[in-house]
Amino acid sequence: MVTLYDYLPSGNGYKVRLLLSQLGVRFRLVEKDIMKGETRTPDFLAINPNGRIPVLELEDGRRLAESDAILFYLAEGTRFLPEERLARAEVLQWMFFEQYSHEPYIAVARFWTHYLGKAVDAEKTERGYQALDVMERHLGVRQFFVGERYTIADVALYAYTHVAHEGGFNLVAYPNVRAWLGRVASEPGHVAITRRQFG
Amino acid sequence: MVTLYDYLPSGNGYKVRLLLSQLGVRFRLVEKDIMKGETRTPDFLAINPNGRIPVLELEDGRRLAESDAILFYLAEGTRFLPEERLARAEVLQWMFFEQYSHEPYIAVARFWTHYLGKAVDAEKTERGYQALDVMERHLGVRQFFVGERYTIADVALYAYTHVAHEGGFNLVAYPNVRAWLGRVASEPGHVAITRRQFG
Repeated sequence: MVTLYDYLPSGNGYKVRLLLSQLGVRFRLVEKDIMKGETRTPDFLAINPNGRIPVLELEDGRRLAESDAILFYLAEGTRFLPEERLARAEVLQWMFFEQYSHEPYIAVARFWTHYLGKAVDAEKTERGYQALDVMERHLGVRQFFVGERYTIADVALYAYTHVAHEGGFNLVAYPNVRAWLGRVASEPGHVAITRRQFG
Repeated sequence: MVTLYDYLPSGNGYKVRLLLSQLGVRFRLVEKDIMKGETRTPDFLAINPNGRIPVLELEDGRRLAESDAILFYLAEGTRFLPEERLARAEVLQWMFFEQYSHEPYIAVARFWTHYLGKAVDAEKTERGYQALDVMERHLGVRQFFVGERYTIADVALYAYTHVAHEGGFNLVAYPNVRAWLGRVASEPGHVAITRRQFG
């Protein structure tokens, strides 16, 4: 059985848990509380020198970090990743967009607001809305991000978009994004982000 | 012939130019000067709604954004991307590390220092050194990032690491990183980042 090192409120971890659920893959969960510094201990740095969850550990002990790389690994050869070369790269395009232009604003705003109780600076909020603008336009003529079917690009973008309100983002002006969130949530095997560590 | 929309001092663009050179793929270059806002015009936003270079345009007009997604697209089926499933995902792991934990500090510090003449805040510098620490440790027992051969993971990480000094980073305490930079630079078909727009 594979092992997932994870922190349950993490959207990055949730991406992997959601896909594992939809693939029907059982896994052992090892929780690491980032609020208590458990991803910065010497033991955890031996697991991931970059000190971040999620980390997937295979049965043979080999490990993989970075949520979107884990999604790609798990999705290869399944219906969650297209076979066609350009479509595969488009999936990656949206996952890199998520990590560079979306997560640092939308996820970080949620972390500051919801977990630390701190104010989010205006520039972060503006950049977050810019990412939502890009998504809204793309979804104006599409049901899903790539190839008109649900892929790991949707999994990656869903994770923090569906809890964007926890970082103060209002999606009222984003009807296409809201409709897409509904489509993703109605996919077979969908599971909710885990809440029990929220306090 | 493929078209590359690019800004020559960009490390993200350089990744793609370097791989195209090493693959022996000829391309048409369309320069977009980010300092003059040329990636934020309506015309360019029609090419990439996220308003960033590089963008690869195929002969049939289809387009792909995000430097590391472009690398993956170009490298599929070549010696620059492993065939083995976990190794492919490890390449992606390092490319996501680059975009999330390295580029926002090391590339952004270079942009501020070298192009805008602004001071870099201490937190950005510290995070940049943390990324270099992770690389230094990983390279302590390896010649290249994945599978002991030169891959697009090395291309992605080389782009901004080899000009890190332009952002004020000193690599004297990073002998493994420096030796790896030398190995990458001696790969067949290596080309330098273009300087002519530096002024």
